[in-house]
Amino acid sequence: FPLGNRYQKPRSTGVTMIIDKGLGLGETRDLLNLAGDYIDFVKLGFGTSALYFNEVLEEKINLVTSHGIDIYPGGTFLEVAILQDKLREYLAMARDFGFTAIEISDGTIELSPPTRAAAIAMAADIGFKVLTEVGKKDPNDAFEIKEIVQLVKQDILSGASYVIVEGRESGKSVGLYDQDGNLRMSDLEELVHSLDNTEQLIWEAPMKEQQQELIIRFGPNVSIGNVNPHEVLALEALRVGLRADTLKTVLQRQK
Amino acid sequence: FPLGNRYQKPRSTGVTMIIDKGLGLGETRDLLNLAGDYIDFVKLGFGTSALYFNEVLEEKINLVTSHGIDIYPGGTFLEVAILQDKLREYLAMARDFGFTAIEISDGTIELSPPTRAAAIAMAADIGFKVLTEVGKKDPNDAFEIKEIVQLVKQDILSGASYVIVEGRESGKSVGLYDQDGNLRMSDLEELVHSLDNTEQLIWEAPMKEQQQELIIRFGPNVSIGNVNPHEVLALEALRVGLRADTLKTVLQRQK
Amino acid sequence: FPLGNRYQKPRSTGVTMIIDKGLGLGETRDLLNLAGDYIDFVKLGFGTSALYFNEVLEEKINLVTSHGIDIYPGGTFLEVAILQDKLREYLAMARDFGFTAIEISDGTIELSPPTRAAAIAMAADIGFKVLTEVGKKDPNDAFEIKEIVQLVKQDILSGASYVIVEGRESGKSVGLYDQDGNLRMSDLEELVHSLDNTEQLIWEAPMKEQQQELIIRFGPNVSIGNVNPHEVLALEALRVGLRADTLKTVLQRQK
Repeated sequence: FPLGNRYQKPRSTGVTMIIDKGLGLGETRDLLNLAGDYIDFVKLGFGTSALYFNEVLEEKINLVTSHGIDIYPGGTFLEVAILQDKLREYLAMARDFGFTAIEISDGTIELSPPTRAAAIAMAADIGFKVLTEVGKKDPNDAFEIKEIVQLVKQDILSGASYVIVEGRESGKSVGLYDQDGNLRMSDLEELVHSLDNTEQLIWEAPMKEQQQELIIRFGPNVSIGNVNPHEVLALEALRVGLRADTLKTVLQRQK
Repeated sequence: FPLGNRYQKPRSTGVTMIIDKGLGLGETRDLLNLAGDYIDFVKLGFGTSALYFNEVLEEKINLVTSHGIDIYPGGTFLEVAILQDKLREYLAMARDFGFTAIEISDGTIELSPPTRAAAIAMAADIGFKVLTEVGKKDPNDAFEIKEIVQLVKQDILSGASYVIVEGRESGKSVGLYDQDGNLRMSDLEELVHSLDNTEQLIWEAPMKEQQQELIIRFGPNVSIGNVNPHEVLALEALRVGLRADTLKTVLQRQK
Repeated sequence: FPLGNRYQKPRSTGVTMIIDKGLGLGETRDLLNLAGDYIDFVKLGFGTSALYFNEVLEEKINLVTSHGIDIYPGGTFLEVAILQDKLREYLAMARDFGFTAIEISDGTIELSPPTRAAAIAMAADIGFKVLTEVGKKDPNDAFEIKEIVQLVKQDILSGASYVIVEGRESGKSVGLYDQDGNLRMSDLEELVHSLDNTEQLIWEAPMKEQQQELIIRFGPNVSIGNVNPHEVLALEALRVGLRADTLKTVLQRQK
């Protein structure tokens, strides 16, 4: 029953990033056996990685990477490291634990453009896949498309593999999402049309309606982040059109 | 502390159907050991069954059926099969995997009455428990009580064991639910009064408030579907009145 | 990266109470290995404890207590026992199963002050940690601060270790929360200022925004209840400021 046209792993576009808010080792193993083929990145949400016992953290990282999945600690953690002027130590520690990717963001603090570019370059040099993030976390901060476009271009020049469009854990009142979690499509289109390509963008879209809108807009191989681990299979079904919500669209495209 | 008057398994009314959006094998085993007595049907949500490795799927099906629970793939999947004119192959494959039930719905596509009746009869002949579904998925499609009543009667005549009243995964803006997930009670009463009995209806009711309203309206042995696997025990507590929300009602009935 | 000033276990303030709506044994083990240090109380939600097989329940209780965590059955269950005039039998049974704490509440039924005081004293005498609860469950019942203050003081005099401020499972339309789950801060301040100290209060706060407001108001060692098991690590990150939402606050305090 092949429907849609979905890339297989390893893939550089159409990636799925899940947010892990504290899965146990058994749960992680279970998830990977079930859905490892549909996951490309695991983010240990917030600063939770600092709260693990070392052995548990190392075992989790091994489990994940052995399935061909990249794993990285949440960006807030790195912001703390930059604030405390310990970026190099932080990156070394992350590599020692086995993390394969790093998120660089300014969700909370301000990073000057040179600091940001230097952090990206440093992490990339060490061998990390670098994901950066655009879009302030605070709903009171404005989301300026022109600034965002500039940032995306600069981050990729600096060595980022992906730029994440912030949607937070909740998917509401942030970045491109209004307070009900609806995508502001005109902002999205402006962003998309100001970029040469959008293949390096990962859209944080925790809500099903958001994932659906993105798949309808960009096709099955749009990159989506902050996915709930328990909904990986459901998202994959949505991508390939095995779900009422996108089946109509897939059928219409095939006509 | 016996409260309420709840039927034990195997039971034909008062069934609980859970929606499995991608539980791992360990999680499934865990759930069945804990709450197997309170589950009658497992639906593999959407088309997720197509996304499993074959061995994982077979093991999951064995696990579930060994606990005296019926299991079936989501209806959207069957709609695809009908669209591609592969219903017989689909049913044969489902039986080979070990599925014991089949859902026949027209959530996305239109099924003519004869096609629908034939599909029900074909599945029942093969030995499946057949569940059909009424209520369009698209919130823009009208929900006509008279049509629904007709469909329920016809489906049962054709061989369906249960007719599911669509509530979707979200429980909002569909069928008998308004956009906030509240039951439209007047529609519900009209539906109920147009049928001789409601024992073969399964109400999709993912939200606790919905489950509560149905239990208060119909008693502990109302059949409820699209239950979150992690809330099976909570639903059972609600049924038997071991929960603040229904305790008052149970107590009042005992007076 | 020590941030914030969080008490370690065993601690009497800053406790985290999770609501278990039906975790399997494997899931429980997994959670405790991951986050046992960040959990102080496990509540078996509603009357779910009555729905377990005895062996499963005993094993769960052993697992939890072996991690230095208290465990108790939901309060609704005890209300049933009082209603049926079986409190002593109920407490004896709870002790035999291995429960180490008891919740005494009048979420559904009315308890006269002497009955309530006697129940608290009886449970404390047997050796249970006693948690009481204030704030009616029914959103139509008024939440009177003066009454609450009186009740808190009386319960602690009677032998309660903690008084829980009711927030329900949903965190909405109850107690100090309005229908959107926002804390009514003026009520909260009135409550706090009428008490000598708030160290024995546990705030039921299932939603992240609620947890965040409480941490910003009271600091990292505020006691929080009805936490989703999958969000224990996320809450702990919020407490210590490893999360964008509270990082700003922690940074400002350190200035």
